[in-house]
Amino acid sequence: MANLNSNAFERLDKKNAVLLIVDHQVGLFQLVRDQSPEEYRANVLAHAALGKAFDLPTILTSSAENGPNGPLPKEILEMYPDAPFIKRNGEVNAWDNADFRKAVEATGKKQIIIAGIVTDVCTAFLAMSLRQEGYSVFANAEASGCSSRRVADDANARMRSVGVHVLSTFAVVCELMRDWRNTPGSPQLMPWFDKHYPAYGYLARGHLAAIKSGVVQPGEDE
Amino acid sequence: MANLNSNAFERLDKKNAVLLIVDHQVGLFQLVRDQSPEEYRANVLAHAALGKAFDLPTILTSSAENGPNGPLPKEILEMYPDAPFIKRNGEVNAWDNADFRKAVEATGKKQIIIAGIVTDVCTAFLAMSLRQEGYSVFANAEASGCSSRRVADDANARMRSVGVHVLSTFAVVCELMRDWRNTPGSPQLMPWFDKHYPAYGYLARGHLAAIKSGVVQPGEDE
Amino acid sequence: MANLNSNAFERLDKKNAVLLIVDHQVGLFQLVRDQSPEEYRANVLAHAALGKAFDLPTILTSSAENGPNGPLPKEILEMYPDAPFIKRNGEVNAWDNADFRKAVEATGKKQIIIAGIVTDVCTAFLAMSLRQEGYSVFANAEASGCSSRRVADDANARMRSVGVHVLSTFAVVCELMRDWRNTPGSPQLMPWFDKHYPAYGYLARGHLAAIKSGVVQPGEDE
Amino acid sequence: MANLNSNAFERLDKKNAVLLIVDHQVGLFQLVRDQSPEEYRANVLAHAALGKAFDLPTILTSSAENGPNGPLPKEILEMYPDAPFIKRNGEVNAWDNADFRKAVEATGKKQIIIAGIVTDVCTAFLAMSLRQEGYSVFANAEASGCSSRRVADDANARMRSVGVHVLSTFAVVCELMRDWRNTPGSPQLMPWFDKHYPAYGYLARGHLAAIKSGVVQPGEDE
Amino acid sequence: MANLNSNAFERLDKKNAVLLIVDHQVGLFQLVRDQSPEEYRANVLAHAALGKAFDLPTILTSSAENGPNGPLPKEILEMYPDAPFIKRNGEVNAWDNADFRKAVEATGKKQIIIAGIVTDVCTAFLAMSLRQEGYSVFANAEASGCSSRRVADDANARMRSVGVHVLSTFAVVCELMRDWRNTPGSPQLMPWFDKHYPAYGYLARGHLAAIKSGVVQPGEDE
Amino acid sequence: MANLNSNAFERLDKKNAVLLIVDHQVGLFQLVRDQSPEEYRANVLAHAALGKAFDLPTILTSSAENGPNGPLPKEILEMYPDAPFIKRNGEVNAWDNADFRKAVEATGKKQIIIAGIVTDVCTAFLAMSLRQEGYSVFANAEASGCSSRRVADDANARMRSVGVHVLSTFAVVCELMRDWRNTPGSPQLMPWFDKHYPAYGYLARGHLAAIKSGVVQPGEDE
Amino acid sequence: MANLNSNAFERLDKKNAVLLIVDHQVGLFQLVRDQSPEEYRANVLAHAALGKAFDLPTILTSSAENGPNGPLPKEILEMYPDAPFIKRNGEVNAWDNADFRKAVEATGKKQIIIAGIVTDVCTAFLAMSLRQEGYSVFANAEASGCSSRRVADDANARMRSVGVHVLSTFAVVCELMRDWRNTPGSPQLMPWFDKHYPAYGYLARGHLAAIKSGVVQPGEDE
Amino acid sequence: MANLNSNAFERLDKKNAVLLIVDHQVGLFQLVRDQSPEEYRANVLAHAALGKAFDLPTILTSSAENGPNGPLPKEILEMYPDAPFIKRNGEVNAWDNADFRKAVEATGKKQIIIAGIVTDVCTAFLAMSLRQEGYSVFANAEASGCSSRRVADDANARMRSVGVHVLSTFAVVCELMRDWRNTPGSPQLMPWFDKHYPAYGYLARGHLAAIKSGVVQPGEDE
Repeated sequence: MANLNSNAFERLDKKNAVLLIVDHQVGLFQLVRDQSPEEYRANVLAHAALGKAFDLPTILTSSAENGPNGPLPKEILEMYPDAPFIKRNGEVNAWDNADFRKAVEATGKKQIIIAGIVTDVCTAFLAMSLRQEGYSVFANAEASGCSSRRVADDANARMRSVGVHVLSTFAVVCELMRDWRNTPGSPQLMPWFDKHYPAYGYLARGHLAAIKSGVVQPGEDE
Repeated sequence: MANLNSNAFERLDKKNAVLLIVDHQVGLFQLVRDQSPEEYRANVLAHAALGKAFDLPTILTSSAENGPNGPLPKEILEMYPDAPFIKRNGEVNAWDNADFRKAVEATGKKQIIIAGIVTDVCTAFLAMSLRQEGYSVFANAEASGCSSRRVADDANARMRSVGVHVLSTFAVVCELMRDWRNTPGSPQLMPWFDKHYPAYGYLARGHLAAIKSGVVQPGEDE
Repeated sequence: MANLNSNAFERLDKKNAVLLIVDHQVGLFQLVRDQSPEEYRANVLAHAALGKAFDLPTILTSSAENGPNGPLPKEILEMYPDAPFIKRNGEVNAWDNADFRKAVEATGKKQIIIAGIVTDVCTAFLAMSLRQEGYSVFANAEASGCSSRRVADDANARMRSVGVHVLSTFAVVCELMRDWRNTPGSPQLMPWFDKHYPAYGYLARGHLAAIKSGVVQPGEDE
Repeated sequence: MANLNSNAFERLDKKNAVLLIVDHQVGLFQLVRDQSPEEYRANVLAHAALGKAFDLPTILTSSAENGPNGPLPKEILEMYPDAPFIKRNGEVNAWDNADFRKAVEATGKKQIIIAGIVTDVCTAFLAMSLRQEGYSVFANAEASGCSSRRVADDANARMRSVGVHVLSTFAVVCELMRDWRNTPGSPQLMPWFDKHYPAYGYLARGHLAAIKSGVVQPGEDE
Repeated sequence: MANLNSNAFERLDKKNAVLLIVDHQVGLFQLVRDQSPEEYRANVLAHAALGKAFDLPTILTSSAENGPNGPLPKEILEMYPDAPFIKRNGEVNAWDNADFRKAVEATGKKQIIIAGIVTDVCTAFLAMSLRQEGYSVFANAEASGCSSRRVADDANARMRSVGVHVLSTFAVVCELMRDWRNTPGSPQLMPWFDKHYPAYGYLARGHLAAIKSGVVQPGEDE
Repeated sequence: MANLNSNAFERLDKKNAVLLIVDHQVGLFQLVRDQSPEEYRANVLAHAALGKAFDLPTILTSSAENGPNGPLPKEILEMYPDAPFIKRNGEVNAWDNADFRKAVEATGKKQIIIAGIVTDVCTAFLAMSLRQEGYSVFANAEASGCSSRRVADDANARMRSVGVHVLSTFAVVCELMRDWRNTPGSPQLMPWFDKHYPAYGYLARGHLAAIKSGVVQPGEDE
Repeated sequence: MANLNSNAFERLDKKNAVLLIVDHQVGLFQLVRDQSPEEYRANVLAHAALGKAFDLPTILTSSAENGPNGPLPKEILEMYPDAPFIKRNGEVNAWDNADFRKAVEATGKKQIIIAGIVTDVCTAFLAMSLRQEGYSVFANAEASGCSSRRVADDANARMRSVGVHVLSTFAVVCELMRDWRNTPGSPQLMPWFDKHYPAYGYLARGHLAAIKSGVVQPGEDE
Repeated sequence: MANLNSNAFERLDKKNAVLLIVDHQVGLFQLVRDQSPEEYRANVLAHAALGKAFDLPTILTSSAENGPNGPLPKEILEMYPDAPFIKRNGEVNAWDNADFRKAVEATGKKQIIIAGIVTDVCTAFLAMSLRQEGYSVFANAEASGCSSRRVADDANARMRSVGVHVLSTFAVVCELMRDWRNTPGSPQLMPWFDKHYPAYGYLARGHLAAIKSGVVQPGEDE
């Protein structure tokens, strides 16, 4: 079992990683107030697309989806029609659900990439239980949503105190890719950047357009 | 010619409105710092899609696109393959370009819905020139991007001082639709909300899911 | 008809005022992101309770409440079981609904106190139409909710440009009461403050407790 | 005695937990500036109601309540007419008061849920003393109020450094409930959510209304 | 009577100005949340000291000071032991009180410098009534306190719409002084800056110390 | 004389414009708290460089520079060794100084571009006096510094109320240039952008580098 | 020597504590941008007054005070005319100065209360050196000033990582007092609160006034 | 190998330190949104200039600079024409590049001062790898740029958890200098402060000007 207090730098290894999509349900989405709805939906879909981009085993779970929490967004369901999808009927902490535990264990992976709604409950409880079970946990803070920035900050600090790595979507992508010349690398991931990281995607589009046009603007070359 | 100081409430009329997409170029996109890139791209595409949703005459323009400003995003170009697209080679204020003026005049419309990058230059200069020409101008503040929130606020105040209506994307949609029973109305616009206004779109998805499942959560009905 | 550009200071007169509760529906409540849910619910109920506190004619309206917008909160319905309640089936701007117009006109009042969800659409459209009809309009900015603070600020500026008075709940209360010795005055309104303005309510509770205990803390009287 | 540096993930157990309400007095309430008064009162009452919702032993304490600090709000006193209520006459840190210590010890519980005014003094001193005595401490950061957000953040970091779990009201509720099918679970706690967590409460009201009306809005089902 | 819509630039004239200190009571002080208590007390005392610094007729007023609103701070009372002090027993708007009106009229001045608690009620109502009576009004925005920044911004905009000059304490001082060589000028006002404008006061102390020491730091003169 | 209430859109004309640099002294620089020192110095130098870039008559003035206010930065003095430089010995409002008035009048220009420290005093007083004299005034809000963002916002609103155009540095540049093909245009101004508008300057450097390297990154062209 | 990683809760003991006032010089004061000048001066003087209030040995130090850093404020010098005052001629970290080390050691105290300008250098370097020497260090975060909030947060985190207690002025006062019935206690400290903690001071003034007037406001007692 | 959890206070030693400039490329510069472009460029150049000011071995590296990331700014290249410059063709984490590792090892230094774009990837990955290799790492948080403040805060916390010292540019300068009388000290570093730390630079200019003029402002000496 892992040392919960260990904070040794650990690098994500795409061969040893699994992606969890936890309770990103359309009802719970309304509770998220630490990001704008536009920004948060973008972050959720960017997180979900990581499984596709890196061919990671991916597990979906939802909580009481017939109630106010509602279903997962169809964009995610259509991305993973065949992934294990554990619909919990009552357990708040997904780790309390035997089917979910089995799904995680079945992957044989030890590095867990996780995000969920809300950060302080669905993400944090599961992340801390996973640490207790000896997993390495990488919590994508941008793809977790919370009732307030303050509550999110406290929840991230709580997770860090048991050795969870709290990081950004971009850090996850770059830790998984490691080298632009790997596969997946530049050719495979540029489309992910274009779709999910607009500042970089538009930078690349501008780069390509510059090469294609080849026209130096007067004064640029001073 | 319009009274520039008149602030009489004027309602948008979809039969009298034209949509302008001004300099939303991928290079200029990088200058936008009053919104996150994710949020701003969402707002730009929501604005652009208004022309399709309400079948409005739509005019595209760009500024020195072979230079650092770069091209318009392909999402917009693909939305409007046949719209008038005036590529300005030097004029900062689009109204200084004769082709652009002609394109606007050719629509015969008097209400101009506008957004651009950056708010204080591309949107504001054109909006104020249009006011001077007697047009009613509705500046979509969310789809205009700016170097800072402060500069955007000052630019919006400047536009307001000559009678420009500064408003949100949602206000534009609702002023154009007026009644959910009109055409376009609920059936035609729900997809727009689903795609471009995620808080409302996910609310509707949750509403539909509730009806489909029909399961009352214990305690809800107290 | 009123001069839309007139900004003459006008004082609220409880004998000439009507209270409007516009689209404060539980679904639309989720779209409100310029205040925390706790704060906004408090502000909505404080606004609604003004009709009771000052015995004002009060009109309720909702928009497409069978859809995602949902019903008005039961707290409000229970406060006004007999008030006119116009359920609009499609009109976004309540003034486009003949029943609503009749309900307002039936009160014979000329000062309209208004709040709604969302500020830039439901509040602003109606407020500006009322101005156009010659009414004096007092928009309670705290009881109107919006997708962002920025959109709310722009919408309030737009309303101001046609002479709408944009103000706080406390300003409305104090303009209606005018003198603590009036009726309603201190005895009738202290309970409103206690319930709806906690900083003042708790100040008063502390004041009363001090008198009751009568114990001077050592050092207080230096 | 507990290892103060231990940050092992520990789950709240409703059978082993006690609720502390510390110095939420109406005078001290005025010192709270890291939340709006409306939001903070809501958070205080939500915290207080946890004892009722989960049938936890609950202890009240106040500091020099005849002085400027004032009495506890009557809403809390009425909620717990029979709970132990230790009125400290001088001790800042409640743990320095023998009666308070006895009251805590008399519960026989080892997990302490705590909130108070102000965070950096009343909550932090007691929380850290409790850690020193070997208790597990769960500090509800939303129900503690402070002179500034900055001071609160530093105080929470200080508490975390001795192993206090700093978390949200929602996290406390969910850790105590664990499964919506437990008792208390969905039927018992929905009313708590409805009253104390308006974003969720109104989500549930909208969910119920959708089922009751059963009307799909045109376009929702695309 | 003044043109309420006139915004002509008008300069303060110390011979024609009166200073109003409105409801800066120790109870109402607690309602102020748009500034920190430390900053706000500093601003209130800086405002009050203007009457002394420029020998302006100064009028004090308070509202229901036996109730929760409490007395004026003794610092202000000690500054103006002989100034007219109108204790209103019920009128919210000080202009509704005949004694207050008489006190203002008795000064024979036409430029009113005003600040109060809270901005949206005590300052705004009086300022707008004074405009209606034909006075020029200069509202010191820093010395008025409000329940939130948002409410203050809206109240200031409301005042501006009837021609109130909303400005800073520093602008008031500089408009009254006009020239550092006037009397009062540099010798008389440096102590005011030292006490009430610490950034400037400490700048001057450093300036003096530099001259006194006369030691150039190595490298300064490169 | 100009209509102070006129807000007609007026375009800057480089043949009719003069640049004012008002009290950007190294002592007063310390009073500026609405921008970081790094950002503000950059904005001041960008403003000062406009005179050079567009060959505008430029006037410098300082206030009591032997006192704590200190001298103008040497960067500015070196930029304009021969410009009129009026060192005021006491007048706060530069317009009260006869030499300064003469210097402005001597240019024969009617459009005044202005910035200064601090916004609410040095910029605002002069800007409003200039309006009173019939000049068109363009206040560069980014190059004016203030004790707080709030005071700056109020001062800008005050200036707007007498018809001052409050705008950004970028808007000034673009209004003066009008067309990238003018002289000065792209070749002359690119160096200004490179030095004073780093987001644009670095965009252009990237554009040039892309053309020079001509290497398309794998995946960019999907 | 202390365990630098130890975070055991340690209570301040007024018999074992020394107060340090580090580089609060009038020149360095201008570098402080994480608090407003008004607020920060108040915090500095509140910190300095702790030595008087609790009769603590107090040590002053300054850095290169003949240079731009300037002298300590005279308010502090007048408070401690006889305290050890070490004027460092070059050492940035006060612990590098032998006289300063001797002054601290001469007190024989082991708990060091510290604040300074700037947080990330003058406070942090000394605080960390003191930890290394085995002292317990209590860094008053409100009385330390910094170039930005961000830099202050990082510096506080750095100090925490070596076991420095980062806390508020109020926490220091309350830890030193412990019980309102101690000496110094309520009679001695109320004047400190009145002067240095205005929210509490004014609360107490209101409390006293309530008792003295004894008038219950109509409606308070409902 | 270093203890990753060790947080012992370690002082920078200019004889044992190396400076890294990591991926501050003009394309990546556009991704930085936690600082304004003006502020961030200033911070990057201040960081780069540290190598010159303290004669530190300095290593430059860039990532895929023919792609959208673009080249390093010419200001930096011109500062270090002869420094080792490792252009990585694919490795995200510079430590994965053998040439870069060799360049660091060749310096023989054990203290690494680092900054880069973006904080959560280029800075954090390398910093943590360096810790793993036993180096002491000092991450300059102001000279690292990030997609958001939130992501930067999380990345800095992650670095701290493995013992990276996260600090400001000013702290780095002061730790390297230690004493103003050292070499480099006051004469050598004043120019660095003048250029890169404008608040201090302008303070010093004002200090010098005061000595040179020697004129005491009337009233300063009261």
